[in-house]
Amino acid sequence: MLIKIKKSAHAGDIQMIRQLLNRHNLGHRVINAGTETIIGVEANPSEEIARELNALSAVESAMPIATPYKLASLAAHPEKTVIRIGNIEIGGEAIVLMAGPCAIESQEQLEAVAEGLKGTGVSVLRASAYKPRTSPYSFQGMGEEGLKLHVSAKAKHGLLIETEVMDVRDVALVAAHVDIIRIGARNMQNFDLLKEVGKCGKPVILKRGMSSTIEEWLMSAEYIIAHGNPDVILCERGIRTFENATRSTLDLSSIPVLKRLTHLPVIVDPSHAAGRKDLIPALSAAAIAAGADGLLVEVHANPKKAKCDGKQALLPIEWAELVCLLKKVALAMGRSI
Amino acid sequence: MLIKIKKSAHAGDIQMIRQLLNRHNLGHRVINAGTETIIGVEANPSEEIARELNALSAVESAMPIATPYKLASLAAHPEKTVIRIGNIEIGGEAIVLMAGPCAIESQEQLEAVAEGLKGTGVSVLRASAYKPRTSPYSFQGMGEEGLKLHVSAKAKHGLLIETEVMDVRDVALVAAHVDIIRIGARNMQNFDLLKEVGKCGKPVILKRGMSSTIEEWLMSAEYIIAHGNPDVILCERGIRTFENATRSTLDLSSIPVLKRLTHLPVIVDPSHAAGRKDLIPALSAAAIAAGADGLLVEVHANPKKAKCDGKQALLPIEWAELVCLLKKVALAMGRSI
Amino acid sequence: MLIKIKKSAHAGDIQMIRQLLNRHNLGHRVINAGTETIIGVEANPSEEIARELNALSAVESAMPIATPYKLASLAAHPEKTVIRIGNIEIGGEAIVLMAGPCAIESQEQLEAVAEGLKGTGVSVLRASAYKPRTSPYSFQGMGEEGLKLHVSAKAKHGLLIETEVMDVRDVALVAAHVDIIRIGARNMQNFDLLKEVGKCGKPVILKRGMSSTIEEWLMSAEYIIAHGNPDVILCERGIRTFENATRSTLDLSSIPVLKRLTHLPVIVDPSHAAGRKDLIPALSAAAIAAGADGLLVEVHANPKKAKCDGKQALLPIEWAELVCLLKKVALAMGRSI
Amino acid sequence: MLIKIKKSAHAGDIQMIRQLLNRHNLGHRVINAGTETIIGVEANPSEEIARELNALSAVESAMPIATPYKLASLAAHPEKTVIRIGNIEIGGEAIVLMAGPCAIESQEQLEAVAEGLKGTGVSVLRASAYKPRTSPYSFQGMGEEGLKLHVSAKAKHGLLIETEVMDVRDVALVAAHVDIIRIGARNMQNFDLLKEVGKCGKPVILKRGMSSTIEEWLMSAEYIIAHGNPDVILCERGIRTFENATRSTLDLSSIPVLKRLTHLPVIVDPSHAAGRKDLIPALSAAAIAAGADGLLVEVHANPKKAKCDGKQALLPIEWAELVCLLKKVALAMGRSI
Repeated sequence: MLIKIKKSAHAGDIQMIRQLLNRHNLGHRVINAGTETIIGVEANPSEEIARELNALSAVESAMPIATPYKLASLAAHPEKTVIRIGNIEIGGEAIVLMAGPCAIESQEQLEAVAEGLKGTGVSVLRASAYKPRTSPYSFQGMGEEGLKLHVSAKAKHGLLIETEVMDVRDVALVAAHVDIIRIGARNMQNFDLLKEVGKCGKPVILKRGMSSTIEEWLMSAEYIIAHGNPDVILCERGIRTFENATRSTLDLSSIPVLKRLTHLPVIVDPSHAAGRKDLIPALSAAAIAAGADGLLVEVHANPKKAKCDGKQALLPIEWAELVCLLKKVALAMGRSI
Repeated sequence: MLIKIKKSAHAGDIQMIRQLLNRHNLGHRVINAGTETIIGVEANPSEEIARELNALSAVESAMPIATPYKLASLAAHPEKTVIRIGNIEIGGEAIVLMAGPCAIESQEQLEAVAEGLKGTGVSVLRASAYKPRTSPYSFQGMGEEGLKLHVSAKAKHGLLIETEVMDVRDVALVAAHVDIIRIGARNMQNFDLLKEVGKCGKPVILKRGMSSTIEEWLMSAEYIIAHGNPDVILCERGIRTFENATRSTLDLSSIPVLKRLTHLPVIVDPSHAAGRKDLIPALSAAAIAAGADGLLVEVHANPKKAKCDGKQALLPIEWAELVCLLKKVALAMGRSI
Repeated sequence: MLIKIKKSAHAGDIQMIRQLLNRHNLGHRVINAGTETIIGVEANPSEEIARELNALSAVESAMPIATPYKLASLAAHPEKTVIRIGNIEIGGEAIVLMAGPCAIESQEQLEAVAEGLKGTGVSVLRASAYKPRTSPYSFQGMGEEGLKLHVSAKAKHGLLIETEVMDVRDVALVAAHVDIIRIGARNMQNFDLLKEVGKCGKPVILKRGMSSTIEEWLMSAEYIIAHGNPDVILCERGIRTFENATRSTLDLSSIPVLKRLTHLPVIVDPSHAAGRKDLIPALSAAAIAAGADGLLVEVHANPKKAKCDGKQALLPIEWAELVCLLKKVALAMGRSI
Repeated sequence: MLIKIKKSAHAGDIQMIRQLLNRHNLGHRVINAGTETIIGVEANPSEEIARELNALSAVESAMPIATPYKLASLAAHPEKTVIRIGNIEIGGEAIVLMAGPCAIESQEQLEAVAEGLKGTGVSVLRASAYKPRTSPYSFQGMGEEGLKLHVSAKAKHGLLIETEVMDVRDVALVAAHVDIIRIGARNMQNFDLLKEVGKCGKPVILKRGMSSTIEEWLMSAEYIIAHGNPDVILCERGIRTFENATRSTLDLSSIPVLKRLTHLPVIVDPSHAAGRKDLIPALSAAAIAAGADGLLVEVHANPKKAKCDGKQALLPIEWAELVCLLKKVALAMGRSI
């Protein structure tokens, strides 16, 4: 249930509602959503309790919602969310292209990619300063120094920038530097991190966890929204299955499924799903045909020298060629790039 | 390894080669492929044995092949296989549409669907007379009577027909009635059935097993080819994962993966993967964008009365509308419907 | 629902019941279970229809059953099924040990294993004459000749024998030779084969499919029982997951789950699950501790020369040593070996 | 590779080694392990580089290790790690029992459980003050207040205490209160958290991620060890599969697999795997038979009122009864409780 509180309500009124919910063992959270105050309730109360709630003078409305995610649900918010950043819209008619290297490795490297992306319709330069690496002995990212290189590239190339944040202690710093924050697959259920980006004031790309159901994914989006940040972009990046021809199995069905459950935009990362660059064109085209609102693709000017994931990065020239195909597919789907 | 035998070779020559292979514990099979005789060998022999083989007068060539599937590999057969049936080609430039009900239930039902498909670009009427049902108490299909209805529909509507075979004892009967035989997901590793359809003389749609890797799938295709039938069409229909928003997880990555491994055509069944009809349009468009050579879709004139899988069947009118979209996507991909 | 028919009922009475069920679109099957006639019904009818059924003079009782499997359910048959073969009981207090080579390769090989098993508490010699092999070029089993060797070994060593059947056309032949028939994981949903072994008159070991849920597994058992054979032994052999340290992931939770759902005995095959022999002792002990009624283990006198699965076969001496441990674990669990 | 540095080495010497590694693009990390300094290297260098390293005067030894985890490997550390805390040993002959409620809910609740565990062989009281909940509206744990209740229970009942930590900012606080820190399944690849607990000075229970391979799990253990904490206890808690009779599929094969790869102790949490209490006895017995060094089980004095996971919690009386069985199984395995 979502309980909308009247603007005229006092702190005491809200306290009374919470006591009522506590009395019935109904988990909940008070959410300050812009100028509104909403109380999200874990489950739908009985009709009797619902009546009691509706009778309270501070309650503007109390909407029962069948799904465990509330604010993220289409039921609560029937119009599609369109996120505006700079001059782009994510979730609108146009499909947004985000591309760049896996990791920020040096100014030269980032420059070379940014240069290579010129004229290919990319509006967001992706790159990571903090890297979740399986091995403690592998390159762990450039950290703050990398963020600064990212900002320079933004200034020089007129691209928006997005990057991953892994540590709650880095959220403020990262949010101060980039336009879009990314939560990686391994952190999809790092709830403290979700709470923290909920307060960061920047749009968040939330990657699907490798073994997360669509419902769990939406619950993680709910965490971010319920902590104050409505600008969540879901990113399908493959799930773990027995098949090992690809690093993960890209679950493109999740796109039309999500479109029936949530108002949030959905993008696709074919690079981490495939783990090999030869599949990127087919998977990118398929993602757009399945209804994706954007793509997040790895491009590197010198993949053989990449400090991570070189095998899945396209060359800028390959990317440019792919975009030509993607424009046609977008058009066929009644959209544009 | 694939050993091509000279046309001039005698039975004794072949026997000698087999003895050599047996001596080295090399599993193998003599294959009569049209007018050619080939010996498929489980593994690649050592260089020494390979030299010994090449020196035999009956051996035309002995080609080592790195993958466990040999005849199905692109290495053995670099040109794409195009299967011609009636006036259609599967694996060519045009994308082939196959549609129809899950099961044959009655003449009226089959008629109604066939009528509904008119003018929608469908060239193959799919429908099953034998049904693999999880419950022994569920409708098991009309059997031979169903096959006859299928043949009538073919005559009346000028459609090719395809149907599933489950029992080795039915292969000859089924092959005598339909144009294309289908092996269901549950039988992908029913090796005796694969051997039998290898001898049936009709093209075979081989569905991917619910928990089969792409390599295992190609090994099952290899069984069919090695038993004499080169006309195998691979059909992606989803794999089993933890996600339950869909019945199976459609693995569209398998299409570009297969295109790099095999010369066989690949089609997609979005209906059984999704298990719900609202996802079919998105998944069909995505399948074509991913490079599929055809679609196998469930359409029923009265899904609510369907004896099985009604929830995933499109109405003819919905199908017709979908085809309009698919034509545009095919065009974007440089193909036609 | 299970409808028990009175012994006094006529064919016409049964026909009337079936018409009633058909009128309400209730899938069903008439089962001749020993001297009883039962009608298994796919779903539970509405209360009204249930009343109508109970009012029919030919109906002795009509028991609604909540699960989709009926005869296999504990609801329908609260006492544990104990299968008696020769002088052993499967599903009783004693844990039954079945061991032997993956495939029958020669008389010498089978002899060597049978000799090696002497005195180790094994009562059933497992070995396959028909082998489901991923590659058409691999050794496919000795067939009927292998069955004869199996029978000789039985005579000589006083062991019961069990073997796999893959092809419906071989069921009668196999049933005529061995004491227990095995359905392999790949054929768990080969429904025609299940129907056929339902009529074979010999106890059947039904292995769990690699990607089958416990419910689907019980539905396959239901097929066998509903076709006349109540002597089904379920065999857990691992499911397919992303983990590749083992060939399959042995799901020992399935044992206590099954014990709450069905009266059928449950055994475990640790060899195919692990795919490597070093894990067999730990998994065998764990299987017994989890409540298994028996084990099915691969033992080979010369694993390095084995034609298949040599890596997972124990030497007879290793097996003998393992049995010492297993006896202690069985005792701890209040059972015996 | 693991490079052991001589005690006599200077900072400059280490710097030189690092430069050599950097020159060859070999990721690495300097580890202060007690009084020793070790450099962990991502991959094994070529023989030539290895010779060069060995020739350096500061290098005591340079051991190539085949697996990606180095310090966690049996190759690097052939004797089993036995962790001593208070008067218990984890990884020794005796099997350690850890039990308690999912969450700390109140003093009364924690007291009631601790009382109930008396005399059941439990040495560690598990309970969580910080809870990773799928819903932002669910009870999130008592936090620091809960830690204090935990400490009181320890004092009163003479039990060691263990609890989960989720947020890097809480590690120091948690480590100051409890004897053993737990990393939950969702945080197994929260690398910043792993680094932080690497510095915390308390033994760490590292739960397996829901979709983590055994190798990835050991890599996460490596993170903790490489950041200074050798006292890692691996905890199997089930992996995510398609089977939904249980919440996760407990992978007991992981125990013997791990015993061949690592020197670290391995315990099992049957409660979270099963998600239902009726399976706990069978799974606990099986875990011990499979070689587990300990169990982590949920026990609650009033499961129906539990704020989370009540369905999987045993009553103290049920737990006491189970321990009687487990003692017998441990004895059968040559161990004790």
